[in-house]
Amino acid sequence: MNYRLLIQYEGTDFHGWQIQANNQRTVQGELTRVLSMLEGAAVTVHGSGRTDAGAHAEAQVANVHLERPFTPDKLLIAINGNLPRDIRIMNVETAAPDFHARFSAKGKTYRYRVLNASVMSPFWRRYALHEPRPLDLAKMQCAARLFFGVHDWTAFSAARSDAENRVREVTRLDIEKFTETRMNAELIEFTISAEGFLRYMARSIVGTLLEVGRGEKTSETVWQAIVTGERRLAKETAAAHGLTLLKVHYD
Amino acid sequence: MNYRLLIQYEGTDFHGWQIQANNQRTVQGELTRVLSMLEGAAVTVHGSGRTDAGAHAEAQVANVHLERPFTPDKLLIAINGNLPRDIRIMNVETAAPDFHARFSAKGKTYRYRVLNASVMSPFWRRYALHEPRPLDLAKMQCAARLFFGVHDWTAFSAARSDAENRVREVTRLDIEKFTETRMNAELIEFTISAEGFLRYMARSIVGTLLEVGRGEKTSETVWQAIVTGERRLAKETAAAHGLTLLKVHYD
Repeated sequence: MNYRLLIQYEGTDFHGWQIQANNQRTVQGELTRVLSMLEGAAVTVHGSGRTDAGAHAEAQVANVHLERPFTPDKLLIAINGNLPRDIRIMNVETAAPDFHARFSAKGKTYRYRVLNASVMSPFWRRYALHEPRPLDLAKMQCAARLFFGVHDWTAFSAARSDAENRVREVTRLDIEKFTETRMNAELIEFTISAEGFLRYMARSIVGTLLEVGRGEKTSETVWQAIVTGERRLAKETAAAHGLTLLKVHYD
Repeated sequence: MNYRLLIQYEGTDFHGWQIQANNQRTVQGELTRVLSMLEGAAVTVHGSGRTDAGAHAEAQVANVHLERPFTPDKLLIAINGNLPRDIRIMNVETAAPDFHARFSAKGKTYRYRVLNASVMSPFWRRYALHEPRPLDLAKMQCAARLFFGVHDWTAFSAARSDAENRVREVTRLDIEKFTETRMNAELIEFTISAEGFLRYMARSIVGTLLEVGRGEKTSETVWQAIVTGERRLAKETAAAHGLTLLKVHYD
C-alpha cells in the first residue's frame, strides 16, 4: 500500500530534509529509520522536495510503500511513537499506487518570517529572521509584483544548482505585516507560491526584497536581475531559519 | 542609579528564575553575571518573583542598582550583547531609588497555554501543554468563576510553600479558545491575574480546571477545595512549560 504522510518539523536541529552521506541528522533519515523498523525491511521515503538545514515545515508531504497492512490511524500513532518530538506526522492516508510526493506535486508555498524589532524575541529566534533596521513595506510590496509570472530564476538560485531548466512560474508573492502579541513588534510574513522552486530561490527572493525594504536596492535593479539572470544583482540569501514550507500543492 | 529591566525568556533550558546553590543555569544567574561584569563589581538583581523551571516570561521585571552611569539605551545594548539568546532585555528605564521589582509589585498576570489536538505541534512543544483528550470549554469557564475573589489558596499551593499567609485575591481568570493556524488545532489560553501567587498556584488552578474540562472533577469539588483548603481536592499541577509570566503590575 502507498501511504501519504503530512509532516511538521522544526528544522533547527536537522541538517535539512534529505539523507546525507555523512550520517548527519535529517528529517528523511529519521522517517526512514522509523518506517523501516515498522516494516521490518528497508523502505524509501519520498519527500516532495528538500528543505534547507534549519528551515522548517508546517506541511511537508511524503509517500512510502509498505507491505505490512497498517490502517492509516495505526500507522500515524506508530510513527509518532518512535519519532523525536521535533518531527510529527499530522496525517496519514492511503494513496493511489502511482502517487509520488515529488513527481505528483504541482507547486509549493513557502512562508518567510521576519521580526522587525530592535530586540529579538527569545520565542521567535528559531522561526524568524531578526531585522532591527527599518523596512519600507510599501516598497517591498511594489517590488514583489515583479516576481509574478514565468521567468528564468538563474539570478535567484544557487550557482551550484543542478537544475538545467531554471524557468518556473511564480503564482503568488504576498507580504503582510502583523503585530506580534508577545513582542508588540512587527512580524512581516512573505508568502511565495510557485510551480517549483530552485535551490535557495525562496530565500534569495526574500533576501533581495529585504534589500529593497532597507533602501539598498531599487525595483529597477530587481527587474534587471530577473530579466538578465545576473546573480550579482540579486545576491543576498535570507537565513534558512526564517523559512517554512507551508504547503505542497497536488491536483 | 536604580534601573528597571523588562525581560523575556524562554524557560526551557533554565532551572527557573532564581539563582540556585548548586550552580544550575538560571535567569537571575545569567543577569547577575552580565550586570556584575558591566558594573565591575558584584550586584544583586531583584526580580518580581520566581518562575518555575521550564516556565517562560514575556515580561518579567527586575531592578538593579548600578554605580556606573549607563544611559538606559546603552545599558540595554550592553546587557543583550552579553546574554544568551534565550533571554532578552526588552526595555530599560531608570526608576525611583525605592523602586523594588518584588516589593513594589501590586499583582501579576500569568498565561497558560494548552494545545488541544490529537498530535502535538513541534512548534508548540516548548510553550504549551499537549492535551489530546476533549476539553469542555463551557464547563471550565463556568468553574473558572469560582476562583474570583479573596480566598485562602492552601489547596492550590505547594505543601512546602513557605508563605504563612495564603490569602490572595484573584482578579481575573479568562479561558479563551483560538484556532492555531500552523496546526489548524485548538489552542486554549488561561489568563490569571492575582495580587500575588503562591508557589505552584497558577499551575494548580489550571491543572484543576483541566480536570473539570475532561469531566473528571465537578465545579462542586473545586468549590470544596477552595473553601476547605484540602489539597487532595485540587491535586493536579499542570506542567511548567505551558506557563508564561505575562505581566507584572505596578502603580
